[in-house]
Amino acid sequence: MTRTLIAHLSPLPDGPVEVAGWVETVRDQKKVQFVILRDETGVVQLVNPATRDLGEDASDAERSAAALTETIGGLAHGTMVRVSGDLKHDERVKLGGLEVKIGSLTVESEALPETPIAEDSSLDKRLDWRFLDLRRPEANLIFRVQTTFEHALRTYFVDNDYIEIHTPKLMASASESRAELFELGYFEGTAYLAQSPQFFKQMAQPAGFGKVFEIAPAFRADPSFTSRHATEFTSIDAEISWVSSHEDVMRMHEEALAAAFGAVVAKRGAAIEEAFGVELAVPSVPFPRIPLAEARRIVAEGGYEIPRADGDLDPEAERRLSAWVKANHGSDFVFVTDYDSTIRPFYHMRHEGDASLTNSYDLLFNGVEISTGAQREHRVDVLIEQAREKGLEPEELEFYLDFFRYGVPPHGGFGMGLARVLMLMLGLSSIRETTYLFRGPTRLTP
Amino acid sequence: MTRTLIAHLSPLPDGPVEVAGWVETVRDQKKVQFVILRDETGVVQLVNPATRDLGEDASDAERSAAALTETIGGLAHGTMVRVSGDLKHDERVKLGGLEVKIGSLTVESEALPETPIAEDSSLDKRLDWRFLDLRRPEANLIFRVQTTFEHALRTYFVDNDYIEIHTPKLMASASESRAELFELGYFEGTAYLAQSPQFFKQMAQPAGFGKVFEIAPAFRADPSFTSRHATEFTSIDAEISWVSSHEDVMRMHEEALAAAFGAVVAKRGAAIEEAFGVELAVPSVPFPRIPLAEARRIVAEGGYEIPRADGDLDPEAERRLSAWVKANHGSDFVFVTDYDSTIRPFYHMRHEGDASLTNSYDLLFNGVEISTGAQREHRVDVLIEQAREKGLEPEELEFYLDFFRYGVPPHGGFGMGLARVLMLMLGLSSIRETTYLFRGPTRLTP
Repeated sequence: MTRTLIAHLSPLPDGPVEVAGWVETVRDQKKVQFVILRDETGVVQLVNPATRDLGEDASDAERSAAALTETIGGLAHGTMVRVSGDLKHDERVKLGGLEVKIGSLTVESEALPETPIAEDSSLDKRLDWRFLDLRRPEANLIFRVQTTFEHALRTYFVDNDYIEIHTPKLMASASESRAELFELGYFEGTAYLAQSPQFFKQMAQPAGFGKVFEIAPAFRADPSFTSRHATEFTSIDAEISWVSSHEDVMRMHEEALAAAFGAVVAKRGAAIEEAFGVELAVPSVPFPRIPLAEARRIVAEGGYEIPRADGDLDPEAERRLSAWVKANHGSDFVFVTDYDSTIRPFYHMRHEGDASLTNSYDLLFNGVEISTGAQREHRVDVLIEQAREKGLEPEELEFYLDFFRYGVPPHGGFGMGLARVLMLMLGLSSIRETTYLFRGPTRLTP
Repeated sequence: MTRTLIAHLSPLPDGPVEVAGWVETVRDQKKVQFVILRDETGVVQLVNPATRDLGEDASDAERSAAALTETIGGLAHGTMVRVSGDLKHDERVKLGGLEVKIGSLTVESEALPETPIAEDSSLDKRLDWRFLDLRRPEANLIFRVQTTFEHALRTYFVDNDYIEIHTPKLMASASESRAELFELGYFEGTAYLAQSPQFFKQMAQPAGFGKVFEIAPAFRADPSFTSRHATEFTSIDAEISWVSSHEDVMRMHEEALAAAFGAVVAKRGAAIEEAFGVELAVPSVPFPRIPLAEARRIVAEGGYEIPRADGDLDPEAERRLSAWVKANHGSDFVFVTDYDSTIRPFYHMRHEGDASLTNSYDLLFNGVEISTGAQREHRVDVLIEQAREKGLEPEELEFYLDFFRYGVPPHGGFGMGLARVLMLMLGLSSIRETTYLFRGPTRLTP
């Protein structure tokens, strides 16, 4: 007999079924035993009439029934069992209006009796036992939402003739900066872990790939402990040729996001509302665009003085700006554009005629930055000049600069943190909840 | 005016168009100039009537025409240009029966006059200049095929309710063996790069995820220089719960591959035949299954003595076995099953009643191993025993062994090298051709 997923039981007629999953609870009453069984799709009630206190003249069938009763009574929470039985629809059963009368039950894998985490365990403790923590239906849903989101995003890219690339994570030099760089021995030499696929996705442009995307890990030796940072994270990247400005990048970016949110709302919207109380909507495009200088004015007019000198927004300013955008434009998303050159990397293109501003943007979603995008500087002499100005040695960037010496189209793209998008989409408080196995300065296990 | 991709010109009516791409060749004749322009979709001929040797009384229009002629005459191979002009269908034009008469031409990015690689450059030299090497239409096609293949594979998984996971590549211990392990400083401690997602995709099983997949980088400090090995490669992994044996894994594996090959044949089959002379077919399922012991007999009966003592097949034996399968079963694929325990990792489940054999398989495609799969041992006491027997210290595996202590379903899965599949699919001689940027013991750039 083939296993039926619990979510698929309901439409079946009464009759024999096989289910498999883990024991959530056992209610061991004198005359009847109830087991709540969960699998990756839901929960179902199993029922068994108890057979106890056999006399000496008990039949084989009675002995076997008594053995089953004993087995069920001893089931620890989490134990994996396979059950054959009879499905019966009965509207008096609160749990989905059906139950399975146990015919036979096989213990596939016993759980230790003491579960190391409970509902009120701290996040850190839950992460120690992440494989148990992930059994929560909400956690399962997070990663189903992630799957739907990513697949829709990729489908958008594939349908629009993007090439999927897998850029190397082992590099001979830094991709972003010498800070926050993981270094490793590489045979006789040294390698570094890619902080982003920046240089290599740009390489696809002189390579004539036109439009590319990648969803892959990136690594930052970032010592911070915020709810938004990790030392390893999944980065969604795209890069396209022949853009006229960052506007072309933003248009592609918002279209891709609208497609992905559309898929999530359609497939997981109801489950998200039930589990997280979030009524997810498909964002309308275009998202509002607000130049950084104007964003600063809006925040200042709202009575908040940004406590940093470099002109960038801080997290509180991002929250306030997003609230203003939500109130005035009805959008959960906002592109903050035209960042000052001083707070952007050397490879961002600057305004023609005003080198103090860049053709760049940050995307804020529900008050938090989820992405940075830009048109890239593709003129090698300007690029070298900008690298020098940022204190970089062009000699160390030779392999990257070569990409610009044999013809390269104007291009731009973005990088976006997957776990951040999910955290903000589902109203959660930390990317630790939306990362399968979080990695931070003091967390490298399990 | 919006840029039109070259492949999309043909159905357009005669009239104004804009194209953009890089210069392949310039034929600078006395009276007329021809430019072959390529973009990510194809090539088109541009034409310009030459204007030279103006008299002193030349008009502005004539001067501007002469300037255009001079610009075109000086275009280096690879230079990126944007061209507005008039599309004209003309069946006398060999290249697709159309040409574009140049109205205006903008040089977006000049190429250095000397291209560092030529058609006859060695593979190693081509890899030095990979961004130029990838401009070849065959290279572009390889990564479009990869995109189609991967997306169809993911679509198969998503349609079958798999969860996509992103397992960490930073680990506190080895995932496969202490050999071929990259080690890095991690704040005050040490981390290792994941050699495979093995432990973490198994973690999804006690986590109740049911079915999971991942396509992500894996790292091996492998000093070998074969055409099939790299220090960083893209691994396709799947792992499913509630299997009865490796047979369930193979069935899923072949179904997924048939779906992915089907998509490639449908979308890229004609282009593959034209570029690589390979007539790709959708494989029929089930693939033949041959136990390793029988495979050894077949190879021995074919007159080949395998020069290794451990009972495994060597590359020549794999080629011979595949040829035999092709001749006798008409299949390009074969599952070699039931490997000896001595040549399998500790986590492969062994036969009930014969611990010398495992519930495992290798998948060969066109004569080369592309994947290893197995049912996993999920009984923690047996697992510990098998680890000890392989010389591992269970104490070092505690975090992994914990996965098996709180209930875990029987499960199994496979890992498969993406670049190998592509190499064998397209009849290429090295994974260096099917990897975007190859990484080997002596190659860490560009």
